[in-house]
Amino acid sequence: MATDEFSLIAQYFSVCGTAGADTLLGVGDDCALLVPPDGELLAVTTDTLLASVHFPLDSPARLIAQRALAVNLSDMAAMGATPRWFQLALTMPEANQHWLAEFSAGLNAMACQFNCALVGGDTTRGPLTISITLMGTVPSGQALKRSGAKPGDTVYVTGCLGDGAGALALLESKLSPRVEDGDYLKERFWRPQARVAEGLAIRHFASAAIDISDGLLADLGHIVKASKVGAVVGVDNLPLSHALCCSADPERRLNWALSGGDDYELCFTVPADKLAKCQRLIDEGELTATPIGQIIEGQGVRCVDKQGIPFEICDPGYQHF
Amino acid sequence: MATDEFSLIAQYFSVCGTAGADTLLGVGDDCALLVPPDGELLAVTTDTLLASVHFPLDSPARLIAQRALAVNLSDMAAMGATPRWFQLALTMPEANQHWLAEFSAGLNAMACQFNCALVGGDTTRGPLTISITLMGTVPSGQALKRSGAKPGDTVYVTGCLGDGAGALALLESKLSPRVEDGDYLKERFWRPQARVAEGLAIRHFASAAIDISDGLLADLGHIVKASKVGAVVGVDNLPLSHALCCSADPERRLNWALSGGDDYELCFTVPADKLAKCQRLIDEGELTATPIGQIIEGQGVRCVDKQGIPFEICDPGYQHF
Repeated sequence: MATDEFSLIAQYFSVCGTAGADTLLGVGDDCALLVPPDGELLAVTTDTLLASVHFPLDSPARLIAQRALAVNLSDMAAMGATPRWFQLALTMPEANQHWLAEFSAGLNAMACQFNCALVGGDTTRGPLTISITLMGTVPSGQALKRSGAKPGDTVYVTGCLGDGAGALALLESKLSPRVEDGDYLKERFWRPQARVAEGLAIRHFASAAIDISDGLLADLGHIVKASKVGAVVGVDNLPLSHALCCSADPERRLNWALSGGDDYELCFTVPADKLAKCQRLIDEGELTATPIGQIIEGQGVRCVDKQGIPFEICDPGYQHF
Repeated sequence: MATDEFSLIAQYFSVCGTAGADTLLGVGDDCALLVPPDGELLAVTTDTLLASVHFPLDSPARLIAQRALAVNLSDMAAMGATPRWFQLALTMPEANQHWLAEFSAGLNAMACQFNCALVGGDTTRGPLTISITLMGTVPSGQALKRSGAKPGDTVYVTGCLGDGAGALALLESKLSPRVEDGDYLKERFWRPQARVAEGLAIRHFASAAIDISDGLLADLGHIVKASKVGAVVGVDNLPLSHALCCSADPERRLNWALSGGDDYELCFTVPADKLAKCQRLIDEGELTATPIGQIIEGQGVRCVDKQGIPFEICDPGYQHF
């Protein structure tokens, strides 16, 4: 049984992910020493997950770790940046060997999949909290900000919406799907597939992007606010998974697609003269994305149905405070 | 009263510290976008402070913030790196306006003093936890690692040792110093002066360095282990503050100097052919440092008194687990 902080770190976190030539010094000194590529910008994001707030207290350690890294990877994807290194601040009630082994295995799997490496951090004793700071790089001028949307741009989303909220309802026993649909939803919740490849692909033509962590309306709301524009979303265009359609009635699933958190898809805008480029990637199967609306003059996000009739929604999206 | 996460961040943390031309995008997008200087390495460190573990629960918010940043700055100093940007993961039980105003004021003061800027982070609701990831840069080849000490090198420490442990004893009512000595010790605890300038000065001649956060013996122990050498420390050479000498008996203060945590001074080693350079900085008043021992062949850290007689100590330094 490892009994001090240093042995713990050495045992479980000395190798986690893929450390390349861009990592001169990883875990084990006062600082990590990293080699950013000349001429590229550094993109940095931090996300914290707390037990009982962001996941059930008795969740499997492996899945907690994967989710903690995935939500950061999703932010990186939204900037069109390549993830490279991360720091882990891990607070846990006790140094449980089995839990640590499972946690580091999960972290390692996700880090290897996305070709990034754990390079340092801190472990402390307290209520279970996982805070990850992920660093990546993006060529100067190619980063996707929230502030670049212009009237006339088309609004797209990757993948399907509402699965995250559906999975949460399932975990809270408020949804009773078929077994195979439940398995799909749980997988989506625990191992959100950060759209890193999609972020790298769209950075050549998108005018703005954000990842959908707080719900489409809230996150598209951040784009229109930062860009000083408005948006109209066609609710009948929203991409919904087969599993969600089989598990929830139309009103509920539409509500989740518009306002549910935890989808970790990308919402991005494309200028009219770049639509053909975007469509080509979709046709070639390199990008799974759906046009769902338009950027307009004005402010705020409005929803309409296919007849153009305004669609009202009451839930304004997930808020931590 | 700010009631959602976004307003909180905007209100208290949108400007914190000194954001220069190296910060393209700070708080408010999916990632911060930073511009590392060409040809420099990126140095990254993370430290977490928990209420009731690292500071008393009712501590002033301003001091908690300053301490949280200072301990990270100290790690940066130990690498000889220039601090530039930081991310803040803040977990707090409630969004208390007064507390947030005090906390952000303290953070801002320390960030301005050390010329670095808050560029992003995350706020969540839970037990008070402050985790900071600090990023800095250092010219390639000039970073101070733990692994460079060689037999024959002289061991130095900056400033005075044992004040951190003395202050902790005072906070726990286990020490009753004179008022002015108590004030000095509390200041040292709450606003540890990260030795960033000293780290930049010694990187031109030191062979290894570490910051003393877990106690001299534990931290010098990390240097000798990483460098595959041993060390002898002369306990009569240890620099002690006047306040500590007036407040604690010789055995107690020596114990604190050797094993007490929270001093945040630097311990570094200097090869024989660089001693003159080091001494010149000390003579010119640009560096406050004291030679306390030698690096030798072998392993581990031994203590001797001025007669060369081995000095035994029982407390092996602070451990989180």
